[in-house]
Amino acid sequence: MAMPPLRIDLNADLGEGFGVWRLGDDAAVLDVVTSANVACGFHAGDPAGLRRTCADAVAAGVRIGAQVSYPDRVGFGRRFVDVAADDLAADVIYQIGALDGIARSVGGRVEYVKPHGALYNSIVTHEGQAGAVVAALVALGGDLPLLGLPGSASLRRAAEAGIRTVTEAFADRAYLADGSLMPRGRTGAVITDTDDICARAVRMVRENEVVADDGSVIGVTPASICLHGDTPGAVEHARAVAAALREAGAEIAAFVD
Amino acid sequence: MAMPPLRIDLNADLGEGFGVWRLGDDAAVLDVVTSANVACGFHAGDPAGLRRTCADAVAAGVRIGAQVSYPDRVGFGRRFVDVAADDLAADVIYQIGALDGIARSVGGRVEYVKPHGALYNSIVTHEGQAGAVVAALVALGGDLPLLGLPGSASLRRAAEAGIRTVTEAFADRAYLADGSLMPRGRTGAVITDTDDICARAVRMVRENEVVADDGSVIGVTPASICLHGDTPGAVEHARAVAAALREAGAEIAAFVD
Amino acid sequence: MAMPPLRIDLNADLGEGFGVWRLGDDAAVLDVVTSANVACGFHAGDPAGLRRTCADAVAAGVRIGAQVSYPDRVGFGRRFVDVAADDLAADVIYQIGALDGIARSVGGRVEYVKPHGALYNSIVTHEGQAGAVVAALVALGGDLPLLGLPGSASLRRAAEAGIRTVTEAFADRAYLADGSLMPRGRTGAVITDTDDICARAVRMVRENEVVADDGSVIGVTPASICLHGDTPGAVEHARAVAAALREAGAEIAAFVD
Amino acid sequence: MAMPPLRIDLNADLGEGFGVWRLGDDAAVLDVVTSANVACGFHAGDPAGLRRTCADAVAAGVRIGAQVSYPDRVGFGRRFVDVAADDLAADVIYQIGALDGIARSVGGRVEYVKPHGALYNSIVTHEGQAGAVVAALVALGGDLPLLGLPGSASLRRAAEAGIRTVTEAFADRAYLADGSLMPRGRTGAVITDTDDICARAVRMVRENEVVADDGSVIGVTPASICLHGDTPGAVEHARAVAAALREAGAEIAAFVD
Repeated sequence: MAMPPLRIDLNADLGEGFGVWRLGDDAAVLDVVTSANVACGFHAGDPAGLRRTCADAVAAGVRIGAQVSYPDRVGFGRRFVDVAADDLAADVIYQIGALDGIARSVGGRVEYVKPHGALYNSIVTHEGQAGAVVAALVALGGDLPLLGLPGSASLRRAAEAGIRTVTEAFADRAYLADGSLMPRGRTGAVITDTDDICARAVRMVRENEVVADDGSVIGVTPASICLHGDTPGAVEHARAVAAALREAGAEIAAFVD
Repeated sequence: MAMPPLRIDLNADLGEGFGVWRLGDDAAVLDVVTSANVACGFHAGDPAGLRRTCADAVAAGVRIGAQVSYPDRVGFGRRFVDVAADDLAADVIYQIGALDGIARSVGGRVEYVKPHGALYNSIVTHEGQAGAVVAALVALGGDLPLLGLPGSASLRRAAEAGIRTVTEAFADRAYLADGSLMPRGRTGAVITDTDDICARAVRMVRENEVVADDGSVIGVTPASICLHGDTPGAVEHARAVAAALREAGAEIAAFVD
Repeated sequence: MAMPPLRIDLNADLGEGFGVWRLGDDAAVLDVVTSANVACGFHAGDPAGLRRTCADAVAAGVRIGAQVSYPDRVGFGRRFVDVAADDLAADVIYQIGALDGIARSVGGRVEYVKPHGALYNSIVTHEGQAGAVVAALVALGGDLPLLGLPGSASLRRAAEAGIRTVTEAFADRAYLADGSLMPRGRTGAVITDTDDICARAVRMVRENEVVADDGSVIGVTPASICLHGDTPGAVEHARAVAAALREAGAEIAAFVD
Repeated sequence: MAMPPLRIDLNADLGEGFGVWRLGDDAAVLDVVTSANVACGFHAGDPAGLRRTCADAVAAGVRIGAQVSYPDRVGFGRRFVDVAADDLAADVIYQIGALDGIARSVGGRVEYVKPHGALYNSIVTHEGQAGAVVAALVALGGDLPLLGLPGSASLRRAAEAGIRTVTEAFADRAYLADGSLMPRGRTGAVITDTDDICARAVRMVRENEVVADDGSVIGVTPASICLHGDTPGAVEHARAVAAALREAGAEIAAFVD
């Protein structure tokens, strides 16, 4: 019996500089990914830089997602901020609108939303903030998919609200037996061997499984693999993962049609 | 011979608080004006506060304009900043997009643009910055009218680019003989007598003229009268002007259809 | 046997505007208090406004304390931010230094430190952040007293580090039986009756006790009473408390010599 | 007749990252210079990063200067902002105080002031802003020297106010015949050949002259040579200049005793 063709999206963070300050190699990343999580100005990204990033994404045929964040530039959005639900919803709407304006000015548009950093982690379990992010999407019409962690409160609430949810997996991060990511501080949390990363990515996509840190095999059914572009060797890892996935028969294509 | 019915828009600045800080009496102003120049976050306005302002404007049937500014919160956008044209265009696009997202989330949308403060004044004569503002509007599709000072570089360039231009006059500001506003620092620059303000507004709308500071009569053909809401007595002045205009036979209606 | 004379400090928050935005009636508050917790720019306060506030405090003979905060202007420092200890210590040092420069430029200086808002509350129990605040004080020489809540982790750690600690009580806030403040969201958390507030202040200072919300009497030995200046009627309450304390025989004097 | 020993200071900008964003190679620069112009947070520099920079400067025996700026992080302080004199004076005081607190917390202190970017350029001719910077120094006691361009309004006003002035020259910048720097936008404004830069530095220090772009020889008597650390090859240039100056018999030493 013929298998259905495998299809996977590759996403990465882009536009995360600010003014004179640069971060990551956006041009190289745009050669690899199909979906770009573009910063919206709250943790990174000034308007002119974001406009260049969006123009480059449009030119490369890469879909633009709004990488919404807590308002925390000095902490790069990596610190939990106890924002009230109404304020957070408005923050998310403001950021999506701003990036959509920027994207439209260069022939693109925001086609999905992926929360960043501490907000991404918070809404895995924080019901109030997860609800605020979903409320923002609903208030904007409910047409933008939400990219996130399987099993998260945010994706559950989004699905309940009729919003398309898209799950991602991390080829270069260790998983715990319960399916969550090993916290970054712990030894072995980030996988650095290229072959290992590629093998994990292929297994995630082809077998829908990954080996957790305790040796147990857990199920994953990602619609997207998250790649990183801002660490040493990250771009090389990203290219290798894309090549390995293609060699394994997967079609690399955006989850947005 | 029957005169055509007079029609005039009334505009004022709204949403100019930030976080816990409030400015002006937005609710009272919304009872008077037909067009609200809503701050976009760069000189004033936090997302949650802007969302409340936009919701109130929608409820009141008042049109929402994007009051774009230099990035200068501590100076309330009242200080010239020598922003390069590409950066300024991106700043303007970002702000319009952000406010449009906020407005759409409550059932409205941005329907025009009015630059704020020092940017408003700069683009009367600064060709580079005037061009940047117009470039921003063109990049967003060219459908948003630009509200500004007659004779300004920005309105001239907007018209050349096929953008609808809307001129305004100030009933409570003294005019010089060349049609420009007397600078705020000078004695008599701001008119404070309610009857005087009302008489000037009516003459502007019905006779299309205003008396300059040297006694000469100059022509004005405003599509909108700018009212102020953040000074003592401003709301009372605004109400009086609206009443006087109605009594003089003018229909008060938004310039946006 | 003669009682020792009662002596109490009165403190309040000042300088909490930003740019054009004002908050509270600083001039009126300076007539009542002996210690001014002046904002440092992270939750409120622009340099020029802070300089005016410090000049007014110096002219009034009121001591200046640094009201250090999380970097959260849009949230007015009222939201917990999960700042790492080293970053928080540097934030506190930066703010104290900045305000000390401002104070010295008008003939004063920072003479104590009182954390603001969510940081104030956090360091009651958050050992890491409490340690960071104390580390900041130690790094600056250890000479600045720390004003805070009795029983807090911050004051315990400050005392252990050889830093002078100063405890305060709140005449207009309800206490729970364990000596903590009733959270602001709960009904009855803020006491609004002037006579009630005055009676509580006098009992706190003269009898060293306060009645908790369950009717139990708990001990308090405040060196300072915290007054509020930014709510309706707050200045009147402050004046009434000061008058009641003087009538009860207390000397109102700064805790800083 | 024996010549007096030549003595020259070398200064460079440091601490110009922000949060996760880095700029330049501070460690390498600290090996070369005797005076570090450390950012103060307004154009660059977060408190924790500034504290590390100051600690490194103290460890290297390099003097710390406050590199004060307009409040313009997104523009890196490179854009003129029309700040009123009183506001600018307060901004400068705030920044000096903040950095002095940071420096003191690691065993150093601010020992001089060098305005940054557009402010540096503005106060060459803008009397109001030059006066504001000097007023800030006077208000802080008048003990901090001001490092700047010879012939500038700021240095003239500082000298009139009894403040020590320190002049600098730029070995890698072209000079016009009137002694001013060629604007950066013009071809040839920045000299990139290492030997050329070194020869100019030596001639500036030993002969007190430099060849202008029209071939004329103009006089310079710098107390400090400004080096750059944030451009490709800049650190190598800095090292080469230092070596060339030493070889030419100059003692490289801070202008602050």
